[in-house]
Amino acid sequence: MFKKVLVANRGEIAVRIIRSLKEMGIKSVAIYSDVDRESLHVQLADEAVCVGTAKAKNSYLNMKNILSAAVGTGAEAIHPGFGFLSENSRFVEMCEACGITFIGPKSETIDLMGNKANAREQMRLSGVPVIPGSEGFISDAAQAQKVASNVGYPVMLKAAAGGGGKGIRRVRNEDELKKAFVEAQQEALVSFGDKRMYLEKIMENVKHIEVQIFRDQKGNAVYFPERDCSLQRNKQKVIEESPCELISSKQRAFLGEISLKAANAIDYVNTGTLEYLMDKDHNFYFMEMNTRIQVEHTVTEMVTGIDLVKAQLRVAAGEELPFKQEEIQCLGHAIECRINAEDPANGFAPSVGKISYLYLPVGNLGMRIDSALYAGAMVSPFYDSMIAKVVSHGQNRDEAIVKMKRLLNELVLGGIKTNQQFHLALLSDYNFQQNHFTTDYLENLFMTKWKEKV
Amino acid sequence: MFKKVLVANRGEIAVRIIRSLKEMGIKSVAIYSDVDRESLHVQLADEAVCVGTAKAKNSYLNMKNILSAAVGTGAEAIHPGFGFLSENSRFVEMCEACGITFIGPKSETIDLMGNKANAREQMRLSGVPVIPGSEGFISDAAQAQKVASNVGYPVMLKAAAGGGGKGIRRVRNEDELKKAFVEAQQEALVSFGDKRMYLEKIMENVKHIEVQIFRDQKGNAVYFPERDCSLQRNKQKVIEESPCELISSKQRAFLGEISLKAANAIDYVNTGTLEYLMDKDHNFYFMEMNTRIQVEHTVTEMVTGIDLVKAQLRVAAGEELPFKQEEIQCLGHAIECRINAEDPANGFAPSVGKISYLYLPVGNLGMRIDSALYAGAMVSPFYDSMIAKVVSHGQNRDEAIVKMKRLLNELVLGGIKTNQQFHLALLSDYNFQQNHFTTDYLENLFMTKWKEKV
Repeated sequence: MFKKVLVANRGEIAVRIIRSLKEMGIKSVAIYSDVDRESLHVQLADEAVCVGTAKAKNSYLNMKNILSAAVGTGAEAIHPGFGFLSENSRFVEMCEACGITFIGPKSETIDLMGNKANAREQMRLSGVPVIPGSEGFISDAAQAQKVASNVGYPVMLKAAAGGGGKGIRRVRNEDELKKAFVEAQQEALVSFGDKRMYLEKIMENVKHIEVQIFRDQKGNAVYFPERDCSLQRNKQKVIEESPCELISSKQRAFLGEISLKAANAIDYVNTGTLEYLMDKDHNFYFMEMNTRIQVEHTVTEMVTGIDLVKAQLRVAAGEELPFKQEEIQCLGHAIECRINAEDPANGFAPSVGKISYLYLPVGNLGMRIDSALYAGAMVSPFYDSMIAKVVSHGQNRDEAIVKMKRLLNELVLGGIKTNQQFHLALLSDYNFQQNHFTTDYLENLFMTKWKEKV
Repeated sequence: MFKKVLVANRGEIAVRIIRSLKEMGIKSVAIYSDVDRESLHVQLADEAVCVGTAKAKNSYLNMKNILSAAVGTGAEAIHPGFGFLSENSRFVEMCEACGITFIGPKSETIDLMGNKANAREQMRLSGVPVIPGSEGFISDAAQAQKVASNVGYPVMLKAAAGGGGKGIRRVRNEDELKKAFVEAQQEALVSFGDKRMYLEKIMENVKHIEVQIFRDQKGNAVYFPERDCSLQRNKQKVIEESPCELISSKQRAFLGEISLKAANAIDYVNTGTLEYLMDKDHNFYFMEMNTRIQVEHTVTEMVTGIDLVKAQLRVAAGEELPFKQEEIQCLGHAIECRINAEDPANGFAPSVGKISYLYLPVGNLGMRIDSALYAGAMVSPFYDSMIAKVVSHGQNRDEAIVKMKRLLNELVLGGIKTNQQFHLALLSDYNFQQNHFTTDYLENLFMTKWKEKV
């Protein structure tokens, strides 16, 4: 096992990883930007290295400085957390060149799954159901029209090498298609030097269901109970839960099996998550794969009792997966609310400042709060607004909901504005409680009702 | 189910009960003494009633005022927690007279188990192994000598109606016996108006092993995995854990079965705990039964995933036990450290004052901290010094130990002195880690080593 690991991240996920390292007896190295010098992850780590100034590109994305910190402190491995460099294949290659283990998949895997057109094609070929659309690439508008009329409008035109919203067009009907295709292709060429396009049907009234899997270097693989992450705002998940009560154990096994088939096909090593859309008839359609630990891994840990970061460390060190499929239980139900430093009453504008008072409701069974906050900590304007993950775990969904309401009612976060009350409104919503929601529910129906009340 | 319940306690156990009430949608009524008016249990409850001045006999033991508070607020039931009135059969009778449900066993059961000689005899007759000693009562010194020479010295002479250390004598040999018996009997007569005596062998090199059971009004009953509470100082438990790794599953089932046999024999209703001594050959000897929720119920909740207070409420309301024996799992291992406001370096003298800073390490899997503390709270000199229960839960004992060490290293309690460092020393002790300890270990061997270091 590693003796020392550098954590290339900040905030709650860095704290969460450092805590697992401590429990495994592994020395931890934190990195930080100058504004983060008093952060909790810096205080908890055995060593800490400043890797640059506040802006992420100067520090948490500064590959050379991070690798220098790893080499300088003698760290044998780097855990990237999520975001920042966690899905950067170039960084993985640089780690390899320095003889440092990247705790994640191989760089080729990241590249393959990072290119959404390739990922889609790879999954289709592996027998995983994908969103109806093109097979491979589309070369011209005429071909696009043919595929679109086959799958039905509306459709989304996407650049194969896409990212950041470039080379992407929503198309409602055939009339719009030709112009949109030419524009998007041109944009793709300019943005990525690659004009290859693909097309997907736009799915409506669907849930976002995802399956976390874990596969070791010897090919042992398991899947975990699915998560429902349909409640989103601005493409960001707001509440996640596991399992999805609407899914039968037979469907759970099916989803798990196709996800493992996909992981085997690409010789995936690490934990990772396959994101699907689920329609009202419970058909599943692959969207994309995240090749890293995710924010919402917490709910999976609560229902399985498994520390996924510890398992990542073991697998990265060459050990076999420390659990078998038949040992993985799904006990009860867990819900996570992402607490953001933002003001819902003011268009969810970011809120920054010093935490003047903190009360964390930490007693009783079935809860955890992952956070880098402490009384006196600064919430900085430079990074993600997510400052805490409140997780409740009950014997069933209803119990997890009432527990979460209690936790959020007791939580005191002084000095900044948060979405705590917004969460409480959502937890009290009839459709949420009845599990009647799809990916557009929060932003459309719920927000409309909520704005009227506020 | 009850609509409103009064919690006749303070501190962490009151907070813990109120939290379960909230999750069940039951209104909570707190009681408090004048010095506790800003306590967390008062803040969290839906209503709160001052029942007297600081001294417990004026407030938390003030039966009339507490019953008035219950009647006045329309509470249908009273949860006594532990300590205070939790094992007071007179209070139970008064509740009954007021038409208020006491959340605990019947008053006769409390009386029966409260008298240790009767409890011992009842258990013996029920087929539960008891500590070697007299059968029934001993009338004179000659009979005591006969029993003592049978079971072997040292022995303990005890008043049947005993309590508070009155009418009790430790006897090392036959020479001491006669004088001790006469003295103890006289003391018993004066103290309790009852000169009946009994005798038990003093067991050495034993572990304190206890089994929590639960039985409903219809006679459905279950037992939970045992707890090892051998680490004690001044007859107070310091660290508790579940399960005891030295006990085989066959022994666990045996212990559970005899405990249920006892509970059935006395028609016990509520959760309760049978305390045993276990010798080096794993023979068990009944000591006493606690007819209430205990401090250390938390470790049982962690390994079973069951909220025992919620179950108490259901059973008290006449519902059947919400779980069957075969549904009760023992998942992993849990440890509790009792954090006391005391100064180990100064003879464990109580420490009181204002909590000037509080950091609770609440993230990651497998922990809970039950406490009524918050930054700004007062730790009062009037009540028990236990201010927090830190609980860790790991996949095995080793993981629970390293997790506890991490939690205690991260916990910051400013403004008062605590036994946090003493716990850390104990957690790092080789004999503790190897599970090599009996009830006398902490006070004898460990304290000697520890005093040398401090």
